[in-house]
Formats: sequence, C-alpha cells, structure tokens
Amino acid sequence: MSTPSPELLAALDLRDDQYSTTEADRDDHSRDWATAPREAVAPDVVVWPESTGDVSAVLAAATEHGVPVTPFAAATGLEGNAVPVHGGVSLDMTRMDSVLEIRPEDRQIDVEPGLLGSEINEALERYGLFFPPLPTSGDIATIGGMLATNASGKQTVKYGKVGDWVMELEVVLADGSVVEVGTRATKTSSGYNLRDLIVGSEGTLAVVTRATLALAGRPEQQRAGRVVFDSFETAATAAADIVRSGVDVAALELIDSLAAAMANAYLDGTLPEKPMAFLEFHANHGVDEEIDFCRTILDRYDPLDVEFGDGSAQDDLWEARRELADATRAYYSDRESTAPGDLAVPLSRYPDLVEYIHALSDERDLPIPCFGHAGDGNIHFDVFADPADEEEWARGVETYETIVREAVRMGGTATGEHGVGRGKRKFMLDEHGESGVRAMRAIKDALDPDGILNPGKILPDVADGR
Amino acid sequence: MSTPSPELLAALDLRDDQYSTTEADRDDHSRDWATAPREAVAPDVVVWPESTGDVSAVLAAATEHGVPVTPFAAATGLEGNAVPVHGGVSLDMTRMDSVLEIRPEDRQIDVEPGLLGSEINEALERYGLFFPPLPTSGDIATIGGMLATNASGKQTVKYGKVGDWVMELEVVLADGSVVEVGTRATKTSSGYNLRDLIVGSEGTLAVVTRATLALAGRPEQQRAGRVVFDSFETAATAAADIVRSGVDVAALELIDSLAAAMANAYLDGTLPEKPMAFLEFHANHGVDEEIDFCRTILDRYDPLDVEFGDGSAQDDLWEARRELADATRAYYSDRESTAPGDLAVPLSRYPDLVEYIHALSDERDLPIPCFGHAGDGNIHFDVFADPADEEEWARGVETYETIVREAVRMGGTATGEHGVGRGKRKFMLDEHGESGVRAMRAIKDALDPDGILNPGKILPDVADGR
Repeated sequence: MSTPSPELLAALDLRDDQYSTTEADRDDHSRDWATAPREAVAPDVVVWPESTGDVSAVLAAATEHGVPVTPFAAATGLEGNAVPVHGGVSLDMTRMDSVLEIRPEDRQIDVEPGLLGSEINEALERYGLFFPPLPTSGDIATIGGMLATNASGKQTVKYGKVGDWVMELEVVLADGSVVEVGTRATKTSSGYNLRDLIVGSEGTLAVVTRATLALAGRPEQQRAGRVVFDSFETAATAAADIVRSGVDVAALELIDSLAAAMANAYLDGTLPEKPMAFLEFHANHGVDEEIDFCRTILDRYDPLDVEFGDGSAQDDLWEARRELADATRAYYSDRESTAPGDLAVPLSRYPDLVEYIHALSDERDLPIPCFGHAGDGNIHFDVFADPADEEEWARGVETYETIVREAVRMGGTATGEHGVGRGKRKFMLDEHGESGVRAMRAIKDALDPDGILNPGKILPDVADGR
Repeated sequence: MSTPSPELLAALDLRDDQYSTTEADRDDHSRDWATAPREAVAPDVVVWPESTGDVSAVLAAATEHGVPVTPFAAATGLEGNAVPVHGGVSLDMTRMDSVLEIRPEDRQIDVEPGLLGSEINEALERYGLFFPPLPTSGDIATIGGMLATNASGKQTVKYGKVGDWVMELEVVLADGSVVEVGTRATKTSSGYNLRDLIVGSEGTLAVVTRATLALAGRPEQQRAGRVVFDSFETAATAAADIVRSGVDVAALELIDSLAAAMANAYLDGTLPEKPMAFLEFHANHGVDEEIDFCRTILDRYDPLDVEFGDGSAQDDLWEARRELADATRAYYSDRESTAPGDLAVPLSRYPDLVEYIHALSDERDLPIPCFGHAGDGNIHFDVFADPADEEEWARGVETYETIVREAVRMGGTATGEHGVGRGKRKFMLDEHGESGVRAMRAIKDALDPDGILNPGKILPDVADGR
C-alpha cells in the first residue's frame, strides 16, 4: 500500500494531532540510527498513541484491515528494527513517556515505554535507587526500545541485562487484547514465561504499554580504573581472567588502538592510542580489597599502565567510550561501516575472536576497529570499506559475514545486545538451525496470525514473503 | 487408551530393558511426592530413553500415533507435574544422568536432565565452583525437574532462580525435532527467547535432553545466623526490611512457631518453638561488615534472640528447614494438607499475607503452619483438615483457595517455585486473565499441535478437554 487505508484511519478514534501523513513525519519515521539513505522506508501514516486503549484500538483495526504496524520511539536502533519495511503504520510511542509509580519499599518502578532510560534514574535519585542495566545509549534511548532488543550495557557484567530486571509488562497483542505478563513477585513458576518471550521480540509479538522494573540500591562506593596493554589480545585474555576469577567488577570494557585513535580524533582527546581496559567497581564496603584482587590478576599480563581513581575522575574515559559509535563513523571520509558488529562469545573464546578479527583485518587489508563489553564476551566491530569501490565494498561485506559466522561457530551469538532487526536475519539459520527458526515462526504465527506486527524483522524470509 | 499402542512400541528401536508395562513399574510412575492415592494415574508404558535420539524417536512416534508422553524423573514434584493423567507413555529420564563436560574457564557445565542437583555440586567441588540456585530438595531432585518448574531455593534471594543460570538447552519438540535454544555466550538478543519459554513449561512444550548451566565461584566466607522473634508478622516485616535495605544476604528463611514445633516433633529437635529467621551470608571478604549491617536492621524489631556462627554451626537449623515438608505431613494422625501452598508476593505485601493467613487460621479454626523463602516473598503453607470430616475438609479446601486468590490480588503468584502441574490450574485465569491464558494456549498449540506433551497440565481445561 502507498497511502494509508481510509478505513483504518476512520476506525480509529484519534484526534487530528495523533496521526500524520505529511512527508516530513513519514520521513522522520523511515530510518534508525544506522540506516543508510538507500535503506530507508517511509510508513504510510505515523500514529501517536497516548494510552493503552489507543494502542489496542490501532492494533485491532490494523489486524482487521491487514495493515502492518511497526513500533517506533527514539530510533536509536542499529539494525533497522523500527524501519517499517512493509509500510503501513509507524506507531510512535514517545508520547507514552510517564513514570506511573515508584514503590521504593518493593524496589520497583512502573513506567511507560516512551520514557528515556536516563529519566528512570533521574526519577529514582531521591530514593537512593537506580536501574542498573541501562545501555551506554541510555540517555537517548527509550525503555521500550531497550525491552524490544533485550538491551544491555557496561554494567551488565555485574547486574545482567535489561530483561533480567523486568518484572511485569502490560502488552497489547496483535488482535488488540491487553495482557499482563510476568508478576510483581520476585519469582513465579506460574505458566509459560510470556514476559521473557516478549522481551527481545522487537515488537513482532506484542507492543509493550507499561513495564514494571526491578531496581537496585545505589552502591556507597564507586571506583573506576584504566589499564593500558601492549596488545588487544593480551587485554582480552586479562579481561576473561578477571571475570573467570570472580572479581566483582561492575564494568569491564575494552577498546583497541584504532578505536582509541578514533575517539581522540572525534573528541580532540588525549587517550593513549593503545589497547585499553576501562573498569568500574561498585560496593557498599570493601571496594579497595576488590580492586587489590583485580590488580593481582592484571599483574600477570604486564600492563603498560594501571590507574585507579574515584568514579568521577574517569569521566573522560567513559565519555570516549560512549562516543565511540559516533567516533568510528566520523573517522573516514571515504569509507563506511558495512554493518554494525555486535558479537558475543563464551568468555574463553573472546581472545580467540579478537585475534581472528585482527588477523582478518590484516589479510583483507581493511580497517576493523574493535571495542566492547569484554566482561560479557561482547565485542563491537566495524569493517570499513569504500562504498564507491565495488570490489572493496563486497570484500568488506564478505569479511563482516565471515566474522559473524566464526563467532557463531565458537558457540556465540550474532547479536549480543542490538537485536536482529532486518540486518542480522541472514544469520538466524546459522545460529538457530532450521528447527529453531521453524519453532520461532510457529510462535509468531500463533500470536500474530495475520503478520501485522513489525513484519520483515527477526525471521528470515520464507516463500510467502513474510 | 488402557494398553500401550503396539504400533507405538514397534515404531521404537528400544531394547527390552528400555520399556516396561508391569504393574509395579506403572504404579511407580503414577504419582509424585504429594499425590494422594486417589489422585494417582498410571501410564500405559514406562520408557527409559538413554540418548537424545531415543527421546526424539519416542516423541516422533507418539505424535504420529497420538499417544500422550509425560516426562518423569525423581517424582519430587508437589503438583502432580509428572503424573500421566491421560495415560500413555511415562518418559523416565533418570538414565540420562551424566555430567557431559565442565568448562571452568567459562564457568559452565553441560549436564543431562536426570542428574541430581547435588551431583552437579559434587562434580564441581575440585574447581571451586558451584551451582547456586539449587532448591532445598537439591539432593533428591533432578536438574530436569528443576528446569521444568523453574525451581528455586534458599539462596535465590542472592543468586536468583534455576532459570537464571541456564545458558543453553538441547530440547526435543513434539515432532521429534532437536533444537538448541539459548547460547553459551553470556548474553544474546538473537531471536525469540525459546530457552526461557521452555524453562518452567513442565514438559508441556518440549523435553530437555541437555542443559548448559552457568556457575559461580564458591564464596571464601560463609556465615549463618538464627533470629527468634516474638511474632511471625514482626519476623516477616524484618525480613522485608533486610532485603529492601540492600543487605547482601544469601538466604533468608522464616518458619512460624507451629512449623518449629513440627520440626522438633519430627527430628526430636530442640528448636525454640517461636517464629524464627534463618540467615546465611556469602562473601569473598567483608562478611562481618555485612552481618553488622544486618544486625542494625534487626535491632529495630526487638528480636528475642540473635545468634551468628560459621556456616557449619547452623547445620541443625538447616536440617530442620530441609525436613519441614516431611515434618508438617507427619505431624497429625487425622489431618492432611489440602494442598501444598507456594505463594510469592511483592516484598512489601509479605507481612500482610502472613497476617492474613494467620487470621484466617483462627477464623476458620484450622491449623496452617507457614514457612518459606522470605527473602523472595515466597511462603509455603498447608491448611490441615480431616479428610474423613466432609465439612472440615471442604472448609480447608475453601480456605486454601481463598488464601491463594488473596495473594494473586496482592500482585503475587499462585506458585513461586513448584509449578502449576494439575493442582494449580484452577488459579490460572485469576492470575493471567482470559487473554493471558489464551496466549499460552496458542503457544502450546503452535509447538505441540497434537497435544501429546504432558497433557492436562498448566492450562485449565477447555471444551475440547485438553
């Protein structure tokens, strides 16, 4: 379809300012953070729901009229997760952005999906609580998007993923029915775990309209450190050793020398252009003992430099780490990233994966900066190639895919935290096998028989084109 | 059906000692730990698979011939989870009980489902590792059963549930296809989370044939304590306060005075017959500071007695706690438990729930001992009534159901760790609503269209009798 179905719009009881078909609004909703212009697809209509009832009405009408609905919010995704590749409705959730209730006595907060991650922590500040698994992009990404991809962040090594902190969700299914999944109790064994099925399903099974999140107390002690290594492989081996040894580390990030150079260029910074680890420690007492324990492990790897300070003294480091996604993209004038790499492998294979990527970079003569959440065995990388040079671009794409498939062979995953979107669908059969993908498709068909929810994502195409 | 289908058995390439139709074997597989004789249902045939291939062959043949298959192992379930209520095959997993591989460098172990929980920890001892979420019944229950119900235990307050420590599962679907779900990487955002859908599904969606579990390092310091209170409500309020305050407690159990008397009677013990909290602390350093922190909170509640010792000094306490399930059942000669209670509510409601139960016990004139994992807001209770006294028994059943429904109204769950089985199906609509149950049924039908896997469990009956 190229124009919004008049029947669909007529079926919705929306005010004039709750939908738009202007080219500007449609264009705004045609891409996410990493979408190349050639890959953008505009929706036919943008709808801004303001309540669960609005979402329910849109989905019920969309199912009735066979119109695709793609949830949208901050557009910080990297895999086209929010791009409405089959047109239809872009369901912009950003007006549903309230903190509904804070229950400090249960360490729980109820929020709407359009709220920014950082706004959760702002609301919690006076209670001495925080939401630990926020991704690095937490100040520009919404909680709805984080739920959609089961996002994670620098503190995941200690605290786990976003999904680990979700207690209850109010969701709207494709037919418009509203369901509460999960529980506000700490644990449950009651029926199928629909909550963790919907987390990470990228809006293809349901639309989240409210989330009850678990919280943690802010640690009384917080320290951070930086360690410079001679080689990235040594840094990766040290990182794996730290985690394996049971050091209570709250963040353990690595960047390689090329990524450090890119951060310096972007931020006019003065980081050493060497492989580095950034570390953070959270505790209510005894943080120095934990750092001492960490140092004894680091010493085995002859680091070039080790610095520990209080949390705030390391702000420049974390700024560099936060800006890396932008910094890498800005570095070359003639080269682009073929696709954002987001692998996770078992910790013992992390040094092997790093070595494999660097060897391939040399062999294929393409720059591949690497950085990531080493504590989780998660690595981000970009293969940079010139899109105007057909042979080089093809070589870049092939190199990228070779690396992803090697990580899957190592027992890892094609995406540690960004989700599949449309970009990583090509790896789903490698990772999950035919029977695994078939089981996923059966679940999709059971919950969304007409295929209206974010079609063209996660599952690879089959003959019927869905 | 009352006899095993000859076609089914002929279709299976099993040795003679891999199946049985003797009355003794069928009777052994007709009940679990809490099944009353009147509720036992024998299978038509017991099959002992010895490999993933065997399981696959049984399920494929069962789907082809429309024969129910109910997984079975240690029969320690409390809700009839393993009772083959529609006859057919009892799939006894106890021969698949190997430790397949230990990868200390990744803190992972691969096990078969028939392995006892305690055997996991025995295999890990020399690596300084352990599997933290084992239930109290870990020395008699299998890991397969724990996965089936998403079990948890006394250390769940610190370490989480069994499901939180599952990385990858090899499972066989109803059609016999073998799928690996999850990943050996620390995290993934790749496709639908089939792993956590299958955990807790009680063998109704798939049969687990291999599990990769995450492990933790054994803590260097371990201390335990016992606190005696004047009232159970005060104990419950103190427990909620300890958790809310962020004390790093590794176990926090409560028992009321009636449960203490029952433990004494069963074990010829000398526990004070007062409401008590048992606590445990795990740390690599600073355990005394944590206990001091805990004591400052306890002091607010004027405990009658506070004792802390090393871990082993508290063994008698933990023995009493472990034996409580048996002790409560042995206490009355003329009364039985109407059903095993296993509620979990948000922590702030825990004292209210305890008060509600005790008030109802007085009002209905029925003994209701309470104990449980207070740190998780989880309470076990039994309403004791005389099954020979029709009025009293009916009053007991009604009292039990009233309590469960009140916990659900408090934002809690009908089962914190035992699962639904057939016993708690009657609460599924209360807890999940019609749309929630409908979504669960859609998933069941998608993955097991012929309804052969453990029929009659979890989902309430519908018109078609499934």
